[in-house]
Amino acid sequence: MTPGLGTRTAHQLIAAFKTPQAVFRASRSELEAAGVSPGLARSVASGCAFDDAVTQQGKLAEIGAELVPVTDPRYPPRLKEIFDPPPMLFARGRTGLLGSLLLGIVGTRRPTAYGTAAASRLAKDLAAAGLGIVSGMARGIDTAAHKAALEAGGETVAVFGCGVDEVYPAENRKLADQIAQAGLIVSEFPMATPPYPQNFPIRNRIISGMSAGVLVVEGGEYSGSAITAKLAAEQGREVFAVPGNITSKMSWGPNLLIKQGAKLVQEWNDVVVELKPEDRRRLVELCRNRLKLNENELVEANDSVQSSLVYGPASGTCRALLAVLKPDAPVPLDHLVETLVGQSPSEIIAALFELEMAGMVRQLPGKSFLKVWLD
Amino acid sequence: MTPGLGTRTAHQLIAAFKTPQAVFRASRSELEAAGVSPGLARSVASGCAFDDAVTQQGKLAEIGAELVPVTDPRYPPRLKEIFDPPPMLFARGRTGLLGSLLLGIVGTRRPTAYGTAAASRLAKDLAAAGLGIVSGMARGIDTAAHKAALEAGGETVAVFGCGVDEVYPAENRKLADQIAQAGLIVSEFPMATPPYPQNFPIRNRIISGMSAGVLVVEGGEYSGSAITAKLAAEQGREVFAVPGNITSKMSWGPNLLIKQGAKLVQEWNDVVVELKPEDRRRLVELCRNRLKLNENELVEANDSVQSSLVYGPASGTCRALLAVLKPDAPVPLDHLVETLVGQSPSEIIAALFELEMAGMVRQLPGKSFLKVWLD
Repeated sequence: MTPGLGTRTAHQLIAAFKTPQAVFRASRSELEAAGVSPGLARSVASGCAFDDAVTQQGKLAEIGAELVPVTDPRYPPRLKEIFDPPPMLFARGRTGLLGSLLLGIVGTRRPTAYGTAAASRLAKDLAAAGLGIVSGMARGIDTAAHKAALEAGGETVAVFGCGVDEVYPAENRKLADQIAQAGLIVSEFPMATPPYPQNFPIRNRIISGMSAGVLVVEGGEYSGSAITAKLAAEQGREVFAVPGNITSKMSWGPNLLIKQGAKLVQEWNDVVVELKPEDRRRLVELCRNRLKLNENELVEANDSVQSSLVYGPASGTCRALLAVLKPDAPVPLDHLVETLVGQSPSEIIAALFELEMAGMVRQLPGKSFLKVWLD
Repeated sequence: MTPGLGTRTAHQLIAAFKTPQAVFRASRSELEAAGVSPGLARSVASGCAFDDAVTQQGKLAEIGAELVPVTDPRYPPRLKEIFDPPPMLFARGRTGLLGSLLLGIVGTRRPTAYGTAAASRLAKDLAAAGLGIVSGMARGIDTAAHKAALEAGGETVAVFGCGVDEVYPAENRKLADQIAQAGLIVSEFPMATPPYPQNFPIRNRIISGMSAGVLVVEGGEYSGSAITAKLAAEQGREVFAVPGNITSKMSWGPNLLIKQGAKLVQEWNDVVVELKPEDRRRLVELCRNRLKLNENELVEANDSVQSSLVYGPASGTCRALLAVLKPDAPVPLDHLVETLVGQSPSEIIAALFELEMAGMVRQLPGKSFLKVWLD
């Protein structure tokens, strides 16, 4: 709440004085000695920000929101690594999602019907695979991504360019309430901050900063989503893009990103295969636990997940795979695709993922697969 | 015309006996000593193929077609390098095109309106840039590519899976006549060979073999064009693909190819920038000569190409570029894009290419550009 104190200087002062409390106890000359300008030193030392801070505390309590400082164990681990992590996040909703494996989905505010459909489909499938969907709750692609994640019963995080008690655009009030309930709203801007346009690009670094990667669905050549993709790449995040017809202006951005090295995404698994092995293991673990939960809920306790995979709807491909896979020699994906004539590679990959989630198949480096030995 | 004699064995026999004439003069035992089977040795030594060969000669003369053996200097240099080059090509039309810089454009026989439009647009632009467009004259994408190349006044080569005196599909009779007139039809199959379906995949290796690269426009996951792309990659050719909506079945093939490493093509220049430097120089030289021809045709002899670039329709970008470029220090493309606000990167690249073609700008490695010093 201190006027003139930015993210980088705040971090420098805390580094110099060890705690935020010590910063506010310091004299003007001590502050100037730490390298801040006389004006800012006056501003910090005056303590005039304390009244504003008290007001903020009241507002937070009113809507049941929380402050998550960078020192909080719940602070998103990936966000800490970026050049300028927010010293604290205002968080409204399930703060546990800050620790989830997250994926940003961004795109134009004026999508085509194709863009909206692609964003919805991919957000739904990725949320179902266990990824939390992060976006900016803007009109268009952002809104479609949040809604689809919620509908899939998955996790979603909205990063605001205004206070977490504000709603922008106004038409998304109901969605904001749903996200605050079933998901999470975060912002680095204090409560009651109006949606200043200049805050939106700043906000985008948090979307990519929290996430393992960013998926761009539609956007022009110099769109906000192209900027977010650039930021994501600079932060060392994986950049994904959904291709589209070269005759569609809204696919120009994603197609260009693919030309520049972004991974082309036709379906959810194209994202999952590019994640770091430890992240993929996390997803598998998550899905296995979820499946076990469902299993316990089953009336027939004996009808295990594993037998449902073998006798259930996707059973054909799963059974065929289990017949080809060996417990002692890994079989490469290419070989499986060649062997299982009549099944498309995407069906095979989906079935492998299901079997992996159920603990029946293990993936090895180089896209090879082992059958897990089951008694 | 010798029954049972395939491409590879024909090459082996010529290598063993030095000339085709010597092969036919050899005795059965000499042939068997060279490693061919007794049956084939009998077939070669019988000379019974000579009658058929005479018939072929007559048919060739009738429609003004020619035989281009692998030893002919006109034989496409790239085609010689593949695993199994045809020992001779039946050629009908402008045999000079065998030496042109060629690009294969292939795709489904059942394209969407988008696929047809994309194939036409890219074939037109690439033909205008000086590339000869090679395809198989099949329905759909092939037909669109040939037609667009002809309409652009460019070069096109149709590779047939039947004799060059046959037409398949029949509806393309007029197109075949146009190609025989303004372009070139080639085949490794003798005159009067009907369009056997099994010949089409064999024919595809010639499309990619003649070409610097192959551009796939639309096709399913296991389509003929996917096979051609695989062949092209095996032959060391560049593979290009036009992306499309992930909801379109016909874009599944090209999108998958891009995922596997094919270059995404939004516009003609995406192909040109990937060509080998010597191939690009050839295009520039070609276009420069063509522009000079046009220049001579101008009524005002003084109105040079160069001044038309500076005062003509694309003049804004060209003038702006010439103002920024230096004759002594190369300027990177990124810098040009950042500096020339208001012009899209594709406009800038197009203008740079025009200036390069006119000899006013020179491209250096690493996408940097120099102004050529002009008196």
